[in-house]
Amino acid sequence: MTMETISANRSFGGWHKQYTHQSEVLGCNMRFAVYMPPQAEEGETVPVVYWLSGLTCSDENFMQKAGAHRVAAELGVAIVAPDTSPRGEGVPDDPEGAYDFGLGAGFYVNATQEPWAKHYQMYDYIVNELPALVKSELPVSDSWSISGHSMGGHGALMIALRNPGMFCSASAFSPICNPMEVPWGQKALGNYLGDDREQWRQYDTCELIRTAREVPPILVDQGSDDSFLAEQLQPERLVRAVASSGLDFELRMQPGYDHSYYFIASFIEEHLRFHAEHLAAK
Amino acid sequence: MTMETISANRSFGGWHKQYTHQSEVLGCNMRFAVYMPPQAEEGETVPVVYWLSGLTCSDENFMQKAGAHRVAAELGVAIVAPDTSPRGEGVPDDPEGAYDFGLGAGFYVNATQEPWAKHYQMYDYIVNELPALVKSELPVSDSWSISGHSMGGHGALMIALRNPGMFCSASAFSPICNPMEVPWGQKALGNYLGDDREQWRQYDTCELIRTAREVPPILVDQGSDDSFLAEQLQPERLVRAVASSGLDFELRMQPGYDHSYYFIASFIEEHLRFHAEHLAAK
Repeated sequence: MTMETISANRSFGGWHKQYTHQSEVLGCNMRFAVYMPPQAEEGETVPVVYWLSGLTCSDENFMQKAGAHRVAAELGVAIVAPDTSPRGEGVPDDPEGAYDFGLGAGFYVNATQEPWAKHYQMYDYIVNELPALVKSELPVSDSWSISGHSMGGHGALMIALRNPGMFCSASAFSPICNPMEVPWGQKALGNYLGDDREQWRQYDTCELIRTAREVPPILVDQGSDDSFLAEQLQPERLVRAVASSGLDFELRMQPGYDHSYYFIASFIEEHLRFHAEHLAAK
Repeated sequence: MTMETISANRSFGGWHKQYTHQSEVLGCNMRFAVYMPPQAEEGETVPVVYWLSGLTCSDENFMQKAGAHRVAAELGVAIVAPDTSPRGEGVPDDPEGAYDFGLGAGFYVNATQEPWAKHYQMYDYIVNELPALVKSELPVSDSWSISGHSMGGHGALMIALRNPGMFCSASAFSPICNPMEVPWGQKALGNYLGDDREQWRQYDTCELIRTAREVPPILVDQGSDDSFLAEQLQPERLVRAVASSGLDFELRMQPGYDHSYYFIASFIEEHLRFHAEHLAAK
């Protein structure tokens, strides 16, 4: 496996870089971004926070808008931000170009339905191919955490729940926590996986929580003025699913905040400190 | 004068808002952005840092990418980010759509040449119309500072030098500090002001420094790996102009940093603390 550097910016004493590589899993060329803190230049391996972005995003949104580099530099933590779907010639998109399906909306699942199955294998990409590439090419340790926003919050929680022991902690901003029961999730899961709702359960955080084991500590922030709160996010479903589980779980409603990166920026420091604490304890 | 709120995001306990208003000076509808810190909700008036963005930018780039809200919230400072040129139907653009002239590239001058003179009056807009509007509509005090990046660094320094007493401090990232002598500046000044180079001097920081009075403290950061350093920025010209002036001036070369917002984000905290110190001393 090899990857190519396509941009590099000095940032808070470390480096923000974008890489491309040929993804075997997705059958296309993929781009991802890494923030590598100054400690990595001093010969250390550093722990990693994987960040999964939301609908319409690429590897760039979080790196440009979250203000996370400052804290990552202080804590000595790398951040890896993949793209949100396969891209490029031959990769099919929503037939009507909708923002919530197809390009920019891979939903971190392995599609089983045509024409999506050939390329839309984002679950395997995030869980297997990308971490292996990062580990082989960059000075990172085996301590990983995962976080994300909206569709990426769904991805982060779902992937942490399905892979016991892989992550020291998981967090999410405004996650689509019960995709089986909301329009965004129903559209994506129905198209990528087909009509059999039994197949959807493996990608639904609220479903997975009921049977999960070895669940890492979880922190969730949700803005109370998020315009998607009532229809798409419904965090009360997550609270109910967790209620009798005994999990190390906290959901914080943040008064007045919306679904934007201004919300993420306001609380990313607390998420990174939460992850750093659990990464250090490994 | 009235203005209309077109977006509002809670951010670090304060508010990021975008406003539109009809600009008499520019003859078009203009948008600008304000970060108002939490202190303003507690009934205080707060000092203002005006931020002038660079080529191709709008009111959005700094607010989304600089990570400045956190520090502004802590310091109790408002940030006002105007657009970089007039916009809208009837506002002429570079005939070839170049990125360095016309829309997104007003250069903070009052154009005298047609077809630009009717709308391209950005100097008057920034110095007079916008601050009066902000003062009349928002809970701000009379303590103001000014900063900017690249074309906006030129604007910030030039406007501070031309308006003694208006600003408590001025700063710049990667400023076009001697526009008369570099291609970006020559194109803009030649087109907006005509061929008479005498007319250009009033908008050239290095020229203004020679005769300036009541100059506020100035801080400049410049990345050493900025791809525009040698051709367009040439900070050594600024150092020479300041050398025997006795001004309170510091230029810091930042090793490895480029022209991007990652550079701005890395040092904006130091600029805001620099401004806050001088704003408080007024």
